[in-house]
Amino acid sequence: MPEIYFENHANTRVDERVLTVMLPYFRELYGNAQSLHTLGARSRDAVEKARGEVAHLIGSKENEIYFTSCASEANNLAVKGVAEAYRQKGRHIVISEIEHFSVLYAARRLSQQGFEVTQLPVDRYGLVDPADVEKALREDTILVSVQHANPEIGTIQPIAEIAALCRTRNIPFHTDAVCTAGILPLDVSSLGVDLLTLSGAQFYGPKGAAALYIRKGTRIVPQTDGGIQESGRRAGTENVPAIAGFGAACTIAEQEMEENRRQLLRLRDRLTVELPEKIPYIYFNGHPEMRLPNNVNISVEFVEGEGLFLFLDQKGIYVSSGSACASKALKMSHVLSAIKVDTAVGQGSILITFSKYNTDADLDALLAEFPPIVAKLRDMSPLYSYFQKTGQRRAAGPGTDYEHEHEEGECQIDENE
Amino acid sequence: MPEIYFENHANTRVDERVLTVMLPYFRELYGNAQSLHTLGARSRDAVEKARGEVAHLIGSKENEIYFTSCASEANNLAVKGVAEAYRQKGRHIVISEIEHFSVLYAARRLSQQGFEVTQLPVDRYGLVDPADVEKALREDTILVSVQHANPEIGTIQPIAEIAALCRTRNIPFHTDAVCTAGILPLDVSSLGVDLLTLSGAQFYGPKGAAALYIRKGTRIVPQTDGGIQESGRRAGTENVPAIAGFGAACTIAEQEMEENRRQLLRLRDRLTVELPEKIPYIYFNGHPEMRLPNNVNISVEFVEGEGLFLFLDQKGIYVSSGSACASKALKMSHVLSAIKVDTAVGQGSILITFSKYNTDADLDALLAEFPPIVAKLRDMSPLYSYFQKTGQRRAAGPGTDYEHEHEEGECQIDENE
Repeated sequence: MPEIYFENHANTRVDERVLTVMLPYFRELYGNAQSLHTLGARSRDAVEKARGEVAHLIGSKENEIYFTSCASEANNLAVKGVAEAYRQKGRHIVISEIEHFSVLYAARRLSQQGFEVTQLPVDRYGLVDPADVEKALREDTILVSVQHANPEIGTIQPIAEIAALCRTRNIPFHTDAVCTAGILPLDVSSLGVDLLTLSGAQFYGPKGAAALYIRKGTRIVPQTDGGIQESGRRAGTENVPAIAGFGAACTIAEQEMEENRRQLLRLRDRLTVELPEKIPYIYFNGHPEMRLPNNVNISVEFVEGEGLFLFLDQKGIYVSSGSACASKALKMSHVLSAIKVDTAVGQGSILITFSKYNTDADLDALLAEFPPIVAKLRDMSPLYSYFQKTGQRRAAGPGTDYEHEHEEGECQIDENE
Repeated sequence: MPEIYFENHANTRVDERVLTVMLPYFRELYGNAQSLHTLGARSRDAVEKARGEVAHLIGSKENEIYFTSCASEANNLAVKGVAEAYRQKGRHIVISEIEHFSVLYAARRLSQQGFEVTQLPVDRYGLVDPADVEKALREDTILVSVQHANPEIGTIQPIAEIAALCRTRNIPFHTDAVCTAGILPLDVSSLGVDLLTLSGAQFYGPKGAAALYIRKGTRIVPQTDGGIQESGRRAGTENVPAIAGFGAACTIAEQEMEENRRQLLRLRDRLTVELPEKIPYIYFNGHPEMRLPNNVNISVEFVEGEGLFLFLDQKGIYVSSGSACASKALKMSHVLSAIKVDTAVGQGSILITFSKYNTDADLDALLAEFPPIVAKLRDMSPLYSYFQKTGQRRAAGPGTDYEHEHEEGECQIDENE
């Protein structure tokens, strides 16, 4: 049975060219990047080459790139590090309510330490309204963090607009760009951000290396203290093979971005056109236009996401039940709740994210296997049976009228993002 | 020119068997360990297998092992995480003055946040006196952290004794065992520690994975918030290949520990016997008996460590000028200062640490190259020229009497540790 991986927002398969760059740093070039000797210098050169490659991908200076072990660590460093550095100026932080858990819970930790956190609402497509940001900003606001795109519903935020509001008020602005960096063109100057998180594991680089861009002049308190690595902003022996691989992934991503994007869009659009032809009562979540080229979030009415997920798994088709870091919890995610997906529909949600390795044959397999699974699950569903008999959607909970808020077709995905 | 690596306390070459275990997790087994699908489960299995292997190495339960990205992160988590968790009970922390920078500076960070840090002195061999620990403990002491062995001078501390003092007072005790784990037999129960840091990169595992042992019942506040990885104590996508490699390194280390130790001891003892026969006025730092099998710290009088280091480098022999994380700074280290090595002698210090890959031929090369380098450097030294003419050691600084505190041969290294 062929295995098909559709969970590429969590992480991707490492590009063989990336692995080739990494391997010497496990073997003959194993020196510590802080060592002054020749073997250390070769490791240091690899780290600095990678720093340049990451910087080039996002249009920053090399000395504005700080390596971390993963995006969660970079997000923690951004949120907690900036909060601590500007603590004397104020204690108010603004984030959106659909941030990744590493931003959400870092902010929650700060709220236990005397900070106040405002969570911006999003509309039904997951969009933050810049007007809401403007209203939220105060004299004592010291950090705004809004993700570039959401991993779960694919919605891309108006970051440049939000960043401009912060810039005029001298408030550091951070964006978690894990879903966009390496996938879409990205430039920190055009975006106007002060801090930006990116991770190579989302675009064919290895796990174990990510980076935080910190605009020169932005103050930050290190979260891992110790040695002088990363200009003292992140102690700990550099993971040279992973960092070298991350750099290589950036260069490859830059070179092949347009070609990859076209392929991702083709797959996405095929899925969003052909799936509704085969399965009735399905809905696509997220913004129809301002969205990632590789993300399709589907709510399937009258079924449970868990069932969809497991039956697809048996066919060797690996999808996601939502955000990578919380996917063990199969309840409806905070993101779907925030965009007010009805609980009854949201529970039947799965997330499909493509990589450059996915082919039309993969999609054919999904389109062949998915409809009979949905049919089988609906056959077992008392809600579906009630709907078939009466034409009515039943109350989701006892005594509650079930109001179906979705209009079919409305959230159709468009290729212009 | 063959290259000879003598900086194995910083990190070691990855064992080819370890790399073989890692490679599939870059390639076909690239799933996210948190994903519920089959590919995710395979990554999860790899992480849990490694957890068992790490636990077995140090005699802990599997669910007491928490993976981090490096030892510095584990040390930060131990020190800051415990301090935060017990903050209501007290704000006093005890560490030794020769801790790794990641403990030292984590504690310093806490001292800026309302904690009080007592730094225990060490004797001329680098030993902490348990009586000093006892005197330092107070009603409000909430953490003691003393390293198992020092990376720079190799001295092994009486951890079980110190831990027992803490245990009777219900004070969490942490030890940084980066230099001993995988090299010497280690058992958290016999040691009686509550937290212990270890890293695979020091015993032929990859960079990018380390672990903190946390005894069940010890409270700790996560330092990287976000997803549910590591039971919520360390968020962030698991670095599956590195963790799998770390686990494999633990198993191999356990199997081959005695054999490796004998080889390390043989090399160490050859060096400490043969080098003084070839070079006069050299001194070995650290404890003569309670010391690591692979560590030789040498002070060479009348020369600068930088010169030694660079000339050896030209011969393809890579040594260390001290602690890995601060080695760019060629001034005398905080460890040599703490054991009161005279500045004039301490500046001529280099550190040689062996791995299982070092051979007698490596040592022969060092013993052949090192004496003429020292002779050349001494020929350029006005201090040495003065000494040769007068038989007297000159003042190290203007107007200061130079008192040479070292007695030759006194610090000779013994194989019983």
